[in-house]
Amino acid sequence: MWHQNRLTELLNVKYPIIQAPMAGGPTTPELVATVSNAGGLGALGAGYMTPDAMRTAIHAVRACTDKPFGVNLFIPSPTEAADADVTRMANHLQSISPFTTEAANVTAVKDDPKRFSDQLGVVLSEQVPVFSFTFGVLGEAEIKQLQQRGTVVVGTATCVLEAVILEAAGVDAIVVQGFEAGGHRGSFVGNPAGSLVGTMALVPQVVDKLHVPVIASGGIMDGRGIVASLALGASAVQMGTAFLATDESGAHKAFKHSLLHSHDTDTVLTDAFSGKLARGIRNAFINRMQDYSGGIPPYPIQNALTRPLRNWAAQESNAEYMSLWAGQSSALSRGVSAAELIRQLVAEVDIALEQLR
Amino acid sequence: MWHQNRLTELLNVKYPIIQAPMAGGPTTPELVATVSNAGGLGALGAGYMTPDAMRTAIHAVRACTDKPFGVNLFIPSPTEAADADVTRMANHLQSISPFTTEAANVTAVKDDPKRFSDQLGVVLSEQVPVFSFTFGVLGEAEIKQLQQRGTVVVGTATCVLEAVILEAAGVDAIVVQGFEAGGHRGSFVGNPAGSLVGTMALVPQVVDKLHVPVIASGGIMDGRGIVASLALGASAVQMGTAFLATDESGAHKAFKHSLLHSHDTDTVLTDAFSGKLARGIRNAFINRMQDYSGGIPPYPIQNALTRPLRNWAAQESNAEYMSLWAGQSSALSRGVSAAELIRQLVAEVDIALEQLR
Repeated sequence: MWHQNRLTELLNVKYPIIQAPMAGGPTTPELVATVSNAGGLGALGAGYMTPDAMRTAIHAVRACTDKPFGVNLFIPSPTEAADADVTRMANHLQSISPFTTEAANVTAVKDDPKRFSDQLGVVLSEQVPVFSFTFGVLGEAEIKQLQQRGTVVVGTATCVLEAVILEAAGVDAIVVQGFEAGGHRGSFVGNPAGSLVGTMALVPQVVDKLHVPVIASGGIMDGRGIVASLALGASAVQMGTAFLATDESGAHKAFKHSLLHSHDTDTVLTDAFSGKLARGIRNAFINRMQDYSGGIPPYPIQNALTRPLRNWAAQESNAEYMSLWAGQSSALSRGVSAAELIRQLVAEVDIALEQLR
Repeated sequence: MWHQNRLTELLNVKYPIIQAPMAGGPTTPELVATVSNAGGLGALGAGYMTPDAMRTAIHAVRACTDKPFGVNLFIPSPTEAADADVTRMANHLQSISPFTTEAANVTAVKDDPKRFSDQLGVVLSEQVPVFSFTFGVLGEAEIKQLQQRGTVVVGTATCVLEAVILEAAGVDAIVVQGFEAGGHRGSFVGNPAGSLVGTMALVPQVVDKLHVPVIASGGIMDGRGIVASLALGASAVQMGTAFLATDESGAHKAFKHSLLHSHDTDTVLTDAFSGKLARGIRNAFINRMQDYSGGIPPYPIQNALTRPLRNWAAQESNAEYMSLWAGQSSALSRGVSAAELIRQLVAEVDIALEQLR
C-alpha cells in the first residue's frame, strides 16, 4: 500500500484519489459522500449551481459523511457576442434539432456578474474543506480568506505557465489537466488549443517547476494510471470519467451506456456545446455543428443557447444530442458503485506496485 | 533495479529502453551503437536511406558493437497529387524562402515503388537483430521470413485498432505512439488526426487487448516516464526526443539548441513539412504555411518538395526553416552523451521505484 504524502495529509484523505468535480449533474451529493467515505476525496461540481442549490447540496453531503470533500467553481471571464451571431446560432440550433425544442431565451444567456461572488460566499460561510477552481485564477485575497477559514485551495492548470501563475497566487495544490482529460479544458492563458499537453509529458514538467503538490488528471482510469501518475511525480490523481458510470453518478443512463460502450478514439475536442473547448464522445450534434459556417458564441453564451436542446435530449434519452463529456480512457469505465470502484482501484494499485518490484 | 521481462529477453537487452529510429539524420551509427553498448536498444531510422546507404550504416553499427540493434523502414502507400498542385506548392515554397533556394525537381518527387522491397532486402540479407516498421502493416509472409532469419519484428500503432491489426499480422511486439510523441504519426487506419490518443490513455487500453508485448512511446524523457510506462503495462519504452540532443545524435546543432531551450507548449502537429502529420517545435516555416490556401500534397511528395528549403536551412543553421521534430517533453532534453543519458535514466528509474515503495 502507498504511504501518505504532504498532499494526502493536507487533504486529510486515506487515498490519493480525488473524484473530479464534474459540473452539470454527475456529482450528486450521494457520489461525493460515497467517495469521501471510501477514503478518497469526493467533490461537488458547483459551477452551474445557484448559491441556494450549492448550500442544499453541501448540507446533503454533510448529512452522509463527516469526511472532507471538495467544491469546485468556475472563475468568470468577461464575454461578449454580437446579437446577430447569437440569434443566428439560436436559429441554427432549432433547425438541427430532430424535434422542435424550446428556443433559448437569448436575452438571459449572459452571466450574472454577481453570481460568482455569491457562490464563493457559500463556500466561505459553509467552511468547505477543499475548494478548487477552474478557468482562471482566484484573487490572492480570496485565496487567503479561504485558507484562513481552514479551506484547502486548489487551482487547475493545463500547462507549466498556468501552474506557475497559480502557485504565485498562493494555492495549496494544483490539478494539472492533460490532453486526455474529459470535459472542459481548464486553460486560462491564451488559446486553449495551444495548451493541449498529454498527461505523460505535462506532469513531470510541472512538478519540476513547482513547490506545491501536483494532482495529475487526464486519462487515468485504474490502478495502473494511479501508479503511473505517482511515478511521474504527482502527489494524487483526479479522476472524472472513471466515476461517471458509477451507480451514484447523476449522469444520464444513456450517457452511462455510451461510456460503457466507447472506444479509445471516440472522443473529440469541441466548443460546439458550450463555447469553450471540451472533450466528449463524438455524436450527431458535434458532427452537425462542424458544418456551421458562423462563429460559435463564447462561453457561457453558447452553453445557454444549447441548453434547451440538451434538456430535450435528456428527456428523450437521446445520447446523440447530449454533451457526453469523457476522457480518452472512457472505454475503461465500470458500471459499479463508487465505493466498489475505490475498492478496486486500491487493489489494482497494490498489484501495479507489486509488478514493478 | 527492474527485472527482465518477455520483451527484454526477446530483444536480448539489459534495459527496457529503445532509442527511437528517427529517420533523416539523427540516428548515426555512432548513436545506435552507443545506446546498444550501454544496455539499451539503438535503432537506425532508415526510411529515407538508399539500400547502399543502409548497408554501409549497418556495417558501421556492427563495427562498434556486438550487441543487438534495430533498423526501421516506412511502409509505402500509394500517393497521387495533381501536377498543378505540386507546381503551385513548389512556387509557394520558393516564395517563402528568405533566400532563393534550388527549386525541387518536381518530376523526381514520387517514390520508387521498388525502393521498399530493395530496402527490406538489405534487412533480410544483413540479418538485422530487430526490424521495426511504421506507417502501415508489413505482409504476413515478409514478417515470417524475417522471423525465420532470427529478426524480431516490431510494428507501430497509434490506437487499439491498429495494434490489433498488427498483432494479427504476426509481429513480435508493438510500439504504441501516444499523442505527445515527436516526429511523424505512425497512423495507418483512417485520418491520422482521428487517432491522437495520449500515452497515459493509450498504453493500458492497448495492453488489455493484446497478447504481444507493448512498447510505450510519446512524452517519455526520464526515469519517471519509464517507470510510469511500465506501471501502465508496457514492457519497454521507446524514446526519441530524449536522444536528439545527445552528443552522438546527427541532429543539426541549431536543432539541438532549439530542443534545449524549448517549453512544454512549443510543439505542434503539422503536415506542412512532409505531407504527413508530425509533431515538431513551431517555427517560422510552420507559421508561414498556415496561410497557404491550397492543399498540401501528400507524403512523400511534399517531403521532396520541401527538401531544398530544408537543405538550405541546414546550411544556414536557420532553425526557423528546419523540421524540428520533437515530442511534448522536449524541454527535458539533455545535452550529454548517449551513454551518460542511459546511465542517468537507469539511476532515475531506481529513484522513482524507491519513491513508490
